[in-house]
Amino acid sequence: MAKRKSLQNDDCPVARAVDLVGDRWSMLIIRDAMDGIRRFGDFQRNLGVARNILSDRLSALVDAGLLAIQPASDGSAYQEYVLTAKGESLFPAIVALRQWGERHLFAPGEAHSTLVEKASGKRVSAMHPHDHDGKVLKAMQTVVKKLAPK
Amino acid sequence: MAKRKSLQNDDCPVARAVDLVGDRWSMLIIRDAMDGIRRFGDFQRNLGVARNILSDRLSALVDAGLLAIQPASDGSAYQEYVLTAKGESLFPAIVALRQWGERHLFAPGEAHSTLVEKASGKRVSAMHPHDHDGKVLKAMQTVVKKLAPK
Repeated sequence: MAKRKSLQNDDCPVARAVDLVGDRWSMLIIRDAMDGIRRFGDFQRNLGVARNILSDRLSALVDAGLLAIQPASDGSAYQEYVLTAKGESLFPAIVALRQWGERHLFAPGEAHSTLVEKASGKRVSAMHPHDHDGKVLKAMQTVVKKLAPK
Repeated sequence: MAKRKSLQNDDCPVARAVDLVGDRWSMLIIRDAMDGIRRFGDFQRNLGVARNILSDRLSALVDAGLLAIQPASDGSAYQEYVLTAKGESLFPAIVALRQWGERHLFAPGEAHSTLVEKASGKRVSAMHPHDHDGKVLKAMQTVVKKLAPK
Protein backbone atom coordinates (compact mmCIF):
# COMPACT_ATOMS: atom_id res chain seq x y z
CA MET A 1 0.00 0.00 0.00
CA ALA A 2 1.33 3.43 -0.90
CA LYS A 3 2.30 5.56 2.09
CA ARG A 4 -0.57 7.90 2.86
CA LYS A 5 -0.13 11.63 2.96
CA SER A 6 -0.55 12.56 6.62
CA LEU A 7 -3.20 15.10 7.51
CA GLN A 8 -1.81 15.67 11.01
CA ASN A 9 -0.73 19.21 10.13
CA ASP A 10 -4.07 20.12 8.57
CA ASP A 11 -5.82 22.96 10.38
CA CYS A 12 -9.18 21.18 10.10
CA PRO A 13 -9.97 19.02 13.16
CA VAL A 14 -12.10 16.68 11.00
CA ALA A 15 -9.09 16.00 8.77
CA ARG A 16 -6.82 15.20 11.71
CA ALA A 17 -9.50 12.99 13.25
CA VAL A 18 -10.19 10.91 10.14
CA ASP A 19 -6.48 10.69 9.49
CA LEU A 20 -6.22 8.75 12.77
CA VAL A 21 -9.48 6.84 12.96
CA GLY A 22 -10.92 7.19 9.45
CA ASP A 23 -10.76 3.56 8.50
CA ARG A 24 -13.38 1.05 9.33
CA TRP A 25 -11.23 -1.31 11.38
CA SER A 26 -9.98 1.41 13.71
CA MET A 27 -13.52 2.60 14.37
CA LEU A 28 -14.74 -0.95 14.94
CA ILE A 29 -11.84 -1.68 17.31
CA ILE A 30 -12.80 1.44 19.30
CA ARG A 31 -16.43 0.31 19.26
CA ASP A 32 -15.45 -3.14 20.54
CA ALA A 33 -13.20 -1.64 23.23
CA MET A 34 -16.18 0.43 24.40
CA ASP A 35 -18.14 -2.80 24.59
CA GLY A 36 -15.48 -4.22 26.91
CA ILE A 37 -13.32 -6.26 24.54
CA ARG A 38 -9.66 -6.14 25.58
CA ARG A 39 -7.74 -9.04 24.07
CA PHE A 40 -6.28 -9.58 20.63
CA GLY A 41 -8.05 -12.90 20.13
CA ASP A 42 -11.39 -11.45 21.17
CA PHE A 43 -11.07 -8.49 18.79
CA GLN A 44 -10.03 -10.91 16.08
CA ARG A 45 -12.99 -13.24 16.57
CA ASN A 46 -15.50 -10.43 16.89
CA LEU A 47 -14.29 -8.49 13.85
CA GLY A 48 -13.30 -11.37 11.60
CA VAL A 49 -10.33 -9.28 10.47
CA ALA A 50 -6.98 -10.70 9.35
CA ARG A 51 -4.46 -10.92 12.21
CA ASN A 52 -1.85 -8.76 10.46
CA ILE A 53 -4.37 -5.97 9.81
CA LEU A 54 -5.64 -6.12 13.39
CA SER A 55 -2.10 -6.06 14.74
CA ASP A 56 -1.29 -3.04 12.57
CA ARG A 57 -4.42 -1.12 13.62
CA LEU A 58 -3.98 -1.90 17.33
CA SER A 59 -0.38 -0.68 17.20
CA ALA A 60 -1.43 2.51 15.42
CA LEU A 61 -4.14 3.15 18.02
CA VAL A 62 -1.62 2.60 20.83
CA ASP A 63 0.88 4.92 19.12
CA ALA A 64 -1.83 7.56 18.72
CA GLY A 65 -2.67 7.31 22.43
CA LEU A 66 -6.22 5.96 21.99
CA LEU A 67 -5.46 2.55 23.49
CA ALA A 68 -2.98 1.58 26.18
CA ILE A 69 -1.46 -1.85 26.69
CA GLN A 70 -1.70 -3.31 30.17
CA PRO A 71 -1.18 -6.71 31.79
CA ALA A 72 -4.20 -9.01 31.79
CA SER A 73 -6.67 -8.26 34.56
CA ASP A 74 -6.82 -11.98 35.48
CA GLY A 75 -3.07 -12.27 36.10
CA SER A 76 -2.50 -14.44 33.00
CA ALA A 77 0.26 -13.76 30.48
CA TYR A 78 -2.05 -12.00 28.02
CA GLN A 79 -1.82 -8.32 27.40
CA GLU A 80 -4.90 -6.20 27.18
CA TYR A 81 -5.79 -3.15 25.14
CA VAL A 82 -7.78 -0.59 27.08
CA LEU A 83 -9.15 2.76 26.01
CA THR A 84 -7.37 5.85 27.27
CA ALA A 85 -9.36 9.00 28.07
CA LYS A 86 -8.60 10.15 24.50
CA GLY A 87 -10.02 6.92 23.11
CA GLU A 88 -13.05 7.00 25.44
CA SER A 89 -13.90 10.46 24.24
CA LEU A 90 -14.64 9.13 20.75
CA PHE A 91 -17.91 7.90 22.26
CA PRO A 92 -20.05 10.71 20.78
CA ALA A 93 -18.57 10.03 17.32
CA ILE A 94 -19.31 6.30 17.56
CA VAL A 95 -22.84 7.02 18.79
CA ALA A 96 -23.41 9.50 15.95
CA LEU A 97 -22.30 6.91 13.36
CA ARG A 98 -24.49 4.30 15.04
CA GLN A 99 -27.54 6.52 15.00
CA TRP A 100 -27.00 7.45 11.36
CA GLY A 101 -26.67 3.76 10.54
CA GLU A 102 -29.83 2.88 12.48
CA ARG A 103 -31.78 5.52 10.62
CA HIS A 104 -30.50 5.02 7.09
CA LEU A 105 -28.89 1.62 6.63
CA PHE A 106 -31.59 -0.79 7.77
CA ALA A 107 -34.79 -1.67 5.98
CA PRO A 108 -37.99 -0.73 7.80
CA GLY A 109 -38.52 -3.40 10.44
CA GLU A 110 -35.06 -4.92 9.95
CA ALA A 111 -33.55 -5.81 13.31
CA HIS A 112 -30.35 -4.24 14.60
CA SER A 113 -28.45 -3.95 17.86
CA THR A 114 -29.37 -0.92 19.95
CA LEU A 115 -27.52 1.23 22.47
CA VAL A 116 -29.31 1.49 25.79
CA GLU A 117 -28.63 3.13 29.14
CA LYS A 118 -27.38 0.54 31.59
CA ALA A 119 -29.27 2.02 34.52
CA SER A 120 -32.69 2.38 32.90
CA GLY A 121 -32.58 0.05 29.90
CA LYS A 122 -33.89 2.97 27.80
CA ARG A 123 -32.57 3.60 24.31
CA VAL A 124 -30.03 6.38 24.04
CA SER A 125 -31.82 9.20 22.29
CA ALA A 126 -30.78 10.84 19.03
CA MET A 127 -27.82 13.17 19.32
CA HIS A 128 -27.66 16.48 17.44
CA PRO A 129 -25.57 19.62 17.48
CA HIS A 130 -27.53 22.40 19.15
CA ASP A 131 -27.38 26.16 18.95
CA HIS A 132 -26.89 28.31 22.04
CA ASP A 133 -30.65 28.27 22.63
CA GLY A 134 -30.85 24.48 22.49
CA LYS A 135 -32.38 24.22 19.01
CA VAL A 136 -31.14 21.48 16.67
CA LEU A 137 -28.61 22.83 14.15
CA LYS A 138 -28.45 21.64 10.56
CA ALA A 139 -25.25 21.81 8.53
CA MET A 140 -26.57 24.74 6.50
CA GLN A 141 -27.08 26.74 9.68
CA THR A 142 -23.40 26.54 10.48
CA VAL A 143 -20.23 27.70 8.81
CA VAL A 144 -16.61 26.67 9.20
CA LYS A 145 -14.49 29.62 10.21
CA LYS A 146 -11.18 28.90 8.55
CA LEU A 147 -7.85 30.25 9.68
CA ALA A 148 -6.42 33.17 7.77
CA PRO A 149 -3.82 31.95 5.24
CA LYS A 150 -0.32 31.97 6.72
CA MET B 1 -6.47 -3.78 -3.41
CA ALA B 2 -8.19 -6.94 -2.23
CA LYS B 3 -11.97 -6.83 -2.36
CA ARG B 4 -13.25 -5.89 1.07
CA LYS B 5 -15.63 -8.05 2.97
CA SER B 6 -18.88 -6.08 3.06
CA LEU B 7 -20.41 -5.34 6.45
CA GLN B 8 -23.77 -4.35 4.96
CA ASN B 9 -25.46 -7.40 6.47
CA ASP B 10 -23.98 -6.86 9.91
CA ASP B 11 -26.61 -6.25 12.59
CA CYS B 12 -24.51 -3.48 14.14
CA PRO B 13 -25.36 -0.03 12.78
CA VAL B 14 -21.80 1.18 13.48
CA ALA B 15 -20.44 -1.58 11.24
CA ARG B 16 -22.79 -0.71 8.38
CA ALA B 17 -21.98 2.97 8.76
CA VAL B 18 -18.20 2.60 8.71
CA ASP B 19 -18.49 0.13 5.86
CA LEU B 20 -19.92 2.99 3.78
CA VAL B 21 -18.12 6.05 5.09
CA GLY B 22 -15.27 4.59 7.14
CA ASP B 23 -12.44 5.85 5.03
CA ARG B 24 -10.95 9.26 5.36
CA TRP B 25 -11.65 10.48 1.84
CA SER B 26 -15.35 9.70 2.02
CA MET B 27 -15.69 11.57 5.31
CA LEU B 28 -13.72 14.53 3.98
CA ILE B 29 -15.82 14.63 0.79
CA ILE B 30 -18.95 14.73 2.96
CA ARG B 31 -17.35 17.47 5.09
CA ASP B 32 -16.54 19.49 1.96
CA ALA B 33 -20.03 18.98 0.56
CA MET B 34 -21.43 20.35 3.84
CA ASP B 35 -19.17 23.37 3.33
CA GLY B 36 -20.78 23.95 -0.08
CA ILE B 37 -18.28 22.31 -2.44
CA ARG B 38 -20.05 20.70 -5.39
CA ARG B 39 -17.66 20.20 -8.30
CA PHE B 40 -15.07 17.54 -8.98
CA GLY B 41 -12.30 20.07 -9.51
CA ASP B 42 -13.10 21.91 -6.30
CA PHE B 43 -13.12 18.69 -4.24
CA GLN B 44 -9.86 17.74 -5.91
CA ARG B 45 -8.14 21.03 -5.16
CA ASN B 46 -9.40 21.20 -1.60
CA LEU B 47 -8.53 17.62 -0.69
CA GLY B 48 -5.34 17.22 -2.69
CA VAL B 49 -6.45 13.67 -3.46
CA ALA B 50 -5.58 11.75 -6.66
CA ARG B 51 -8.27 12.10 -9.33
CA ASN B 52 -8.85 8.36 -9.64
CA ILE B 53 -9.38 7.97 -5.89
CA LEU B 54 -11.72 10.97 -5.79
CA SER B 55 -13.67 9.64 -8.76
CA ASP B 56 -14.00 6.23 -7.10
CA ARG B 57 -15.16 7.70 -3.75
CA LEU B 58 -17.66 10.10 -5.36
CA SER B 59 -19.18 7.23 -7.36
CA ALA B 60 -19.44 5.08 -4.24
CA LEU B 61 -21.14 7.91 -2.34
CA VAL B 62 -23.59 8.41 -5.21
CA ASP B 63 -24.27 4.65 -5.36
CA ALA B 64 -24.86 4.61 -1.61
CA GLY B 65 -27.34 7.49 -1.90
CA LEU B 66 -25.33 10.04 0.09
CA LEU B 67 -24.64 12.31 -2.89
CA ALA B 68 -26.74 12.99 -5.97
CA ILE B 69 -25.49 14.23 -9.32
CA GLN B 70 -27.23 17.24 -10.77
CA PRO B 71 -26.58 19.72 -13.61
CA ALA B 72 -24.47 22.74 -12.69
CA SER B 73 -26.43 25.48 -10.94
CA ASP B 74 -24.89 28.11 -13.27
CA GLY B 75 -26.11 26.42 -16.48
CA SER B 76 -22.59 25.36 -17.51
CA ALA B 77 -21.76 21.85 -18.68
CA TYR B 78 -20.34 20.79 -15.30
CA GLN B 79 -22.10 18.31 -13.12
CA GLU B 80 -22.42 18.88 -9.41
CA TYR B 81 -22.46 16.54 -6.45
CA VAL B 82 -24.97 17.53 -3.80
CA LEU B 83 -25.78 15.92 -0.49
CA THR B 84 -29.01 13.97 -0.26
CA ALA B 85 -31.01 13.95 3.00
CA LYS B 86 -29.14 10.74 3.89
CA GLY B 87 -25.81 12.47 3.33
CA GLU B 88 -26.89 15.62 5.19
CA SER B 89 -27.80 13.57 8.20
CA LEU B 90 -24.17 12.60 8.72
CA PHE B 91 -23.78 16.10 10.15
CA PRO B 92 -23.78 14.98 13.81
CA ALA B 93 -21.07 12.38 13.03
CA ILE B 94 -18.88 14.95 11.29
CA VAL B 95 -19.37 17.40 14.15
CA ALA B 96 -18.52 14.70 16.71
CA LEU B 97 -15.28 13.86 14.87
CA ARG B 98 -14.47 17.56 14.59
CA GLN B 99 -15.00 18.16 18.29
CA TRP B 100 -12.90 15.16 19.23
CA GLY B 101 -10.16 16.42 16.92
CA GLU B 102 -10.36 19.93 18.40
CA ARG B 103 -10.00 18.57 21.89
CA HIS B 104 -7.33 15.94 21.37
CA LEU B 105 -5.35 16.54 18.20
CA PHE B 106 -4.13 20.10 18.56
CA ALA B 107 -1.42 21.36 20.87
CA PRO B 108 -2.58 23.88 23.49
CA GLY B 109 -2.89 27.21 21.71
CA GLU B 110 -2.48 25.66 18.24
CA ALA B 111 -4.91 27.28 15.81
CA HIS B 112 -7.62 25.33 14.01
CA SER B 113 -10.76 26.02 12.02
CA THR B 114 -13.94 26.21 14.10
CA LEU B 115 -17.59 25.49 13.43
CA VAL B 116 -19.85 28.43 14.23
CA GLU B 117 -23.56 29.18 13.98
CA LYS B 118 -24.20 31.28 10.90
CA ALA B 119 -26.85 33.38 12.60
CA SER B 120 -24.99 34.25 15.79
CA GLY B 121 -21.34 33.62 14.96
CA LYS B 122 -21.14 31.57 18.18
CA ARG B 123 -19.16 28.34 18.32
CA VAL B 124 -21.22 25.19 18.12
CA SER B 125 -21.10 23.70 21.59
CA ALA B 126 -19.84 20.23 22.49
CA MET B 127 -22.19 17.41 21.56
CA HIS B 128 -22.74 14.41 23.85
CA PRO B 129 -25.14 11.52 24.16
CA HIS B 130 -27.59 12.23 26.98
CA ASP B 131 -29.69 10.02 29.17
CA HIS B 132 -33.45 10.44 29.41
CA ASP B 133 -32.93 13.05 32.16
CA GLY B 134 -30.56 15.11 30.06
CA LYS B 135 -27.34 14.05 31.81
CA VAL B 136 -24.23 13.35 29.71
CA LEU B 137 -23.75 9.61 29.15
CA LYS B 138 -20.34 7.98 29.08
CA ALA B 139 -19.68 4.77 27.19
CA MET B 140 -19.53 2.74 30.41
CA GLN B 141 -23.03 3.90 31.33
CA THR B 142 -24.43 2.32 28.19
CA VAL B 143 -24.63 -1.18 26.83
CA VAL B 144 -25.23 -2.55 23.36
CA LYS B 145 -28.27 -4.77 23.28
CA LYS B 146 -27.40 -7.35 20.66
CA LEU B 147 -29.88 -9.36 18.69
CA ALA B 148 -30.51 -12.92 19.76
CA PRO B 149 -28.49 -15.34 17.58
CA LYS B 150 -30.48 -16.54 14.57
